Amino acid sequence: MSNDFSPTARTTPRRHSERMGYEERAVHEVLDEALYCTVSFVGSDGTPQVIPTFHGRIGNRLYFHGSTGSTVGLADESGFAVAVNATVVDGLVFAKSWPNHSSNYRSVIAHGVARTVTDADEKWAAMRALIDRMEAGRSDVTRPPDAKEDAQVRFLYLDLDEVGVKVREGLAAEVAADATVDCETGIAPVRTVVHPRE
Amino acid sequence: MSNDFSPTARTTPRRHSERMGYEERAVHEVLDEALYCTVSFVGSDGTPQVIPTFHGRIGNRLYFHGSTGSTVGLADESGFAVAVNATVVDGLVFAKSWPNHSSNYRSVIAHGVARTVTDADEKWAAMRALIDRMEAGRSDVTRPPDAKEDAQVRFLYLDLDEVGVKVREGLAAEVAADATVDCETGIAPVRTVVHPRE
Repeated sequence: MSNDFSPTARTTPRRHSERMGYEERAVHEVLDEALYCTVSFVGSDGTPQVIPTFHGRIGNRLYFHGSTGSTVGLADESGFAVAVNATVVDGLVFAKSWPNHSSNYRSVIAHGVARTVTDADEKWAAMRALIDRMEAGRSDVTRPPDAKEDAQVRFLYLDLDEVGVKVREGLAAEVAADATVDCETGIAPVRTVVHPRE
Repeated sequence: MSNDFSPTARTTPRRHSERMGYEERAVHEVLDEALYCTVSFVGSDGTPQVIPTFHGRIGNRLYFHGSTGSTVGLADESGFAVAVNATVVDGLVFAKSWPNHSSNYRSVIAHGVARTVTDADEKWAAMRALIDRMEAGRSDVTRPPDAKEDAQVRFLYLDLDEVGVKVREGLAAEVAADATVDCETGIAPVRTVVHPRE
């Protein structure tokens, strides 16, 4: 399909490549459902770093914010390489044997360069996208940032290009040696629910 | 307290350091509640990589598995530097103004070197720990791996030492400029539930 992403070495898993997909709709669905993502990058000391953060999406551009005082916010304008993960766990998968236990999940991994949003209108739209993810129309009934508040927050973006979604679904595998094992199997559904505001 | 971890540069956030804690009990609680963690590392091409994975814990040692055919599983015996994140989202926090919207969460970040478990007994215990996290006693009623299956899986461990837990809780901040804004605020609780097996 024309909207599909193209696999690269970094988005082609070494194992279970049959679980990997590159469909735009599936990628968006997971990003929109996941309540946070992790942003991995290489620190100035060369070691891996990770920051979990709330994200928003407009089309194929993913937004997340960093304070101008945070590690990520301090990145210079040229951007920095990131690997972003957003995962939804759908179930725990019970098998008759230890190695066939598994989990059902949908997990997006995106690679690329995160850059600072410099256009004021785009920054405004990104802020709206994050707020409105929490509740439709929320940005209309709440106060936008004033100049000082606006200056304190930096938004970063990552274009979704080198991206894919790995999905496991269904029951556990059962091998010949499991035939004589007498125990219940099946899937324990996992659901993350946002309850009404208290 | 004697069981607390010591902060390091990597486990001291630049922002909201008041939200950071180093208490062993709190770190364990998040790791045991989170249904997966992300393992971030630096790829052979120097770019950040991330793998979400199911994990288990025995004391202050965190275990996760990689196939001997996977990227992580291919790491040599000397290990590789990782940043591990496990996050539990507890609520969405609604404010009167855009910048004060937030989320309540508990999030562990651990840094260190992930190494292959080479002791057979320890590997067995790690496998049990992962299986029994899914359901207490599950490893007793299911079939352990045979020699071939055992050879196909590699377990990695990370000692919890350079680790901390960042926590946000409570209502949104309200600033003077919000006083005239008329909208509901509060917390929308977020709960991730594992339902009975189907």
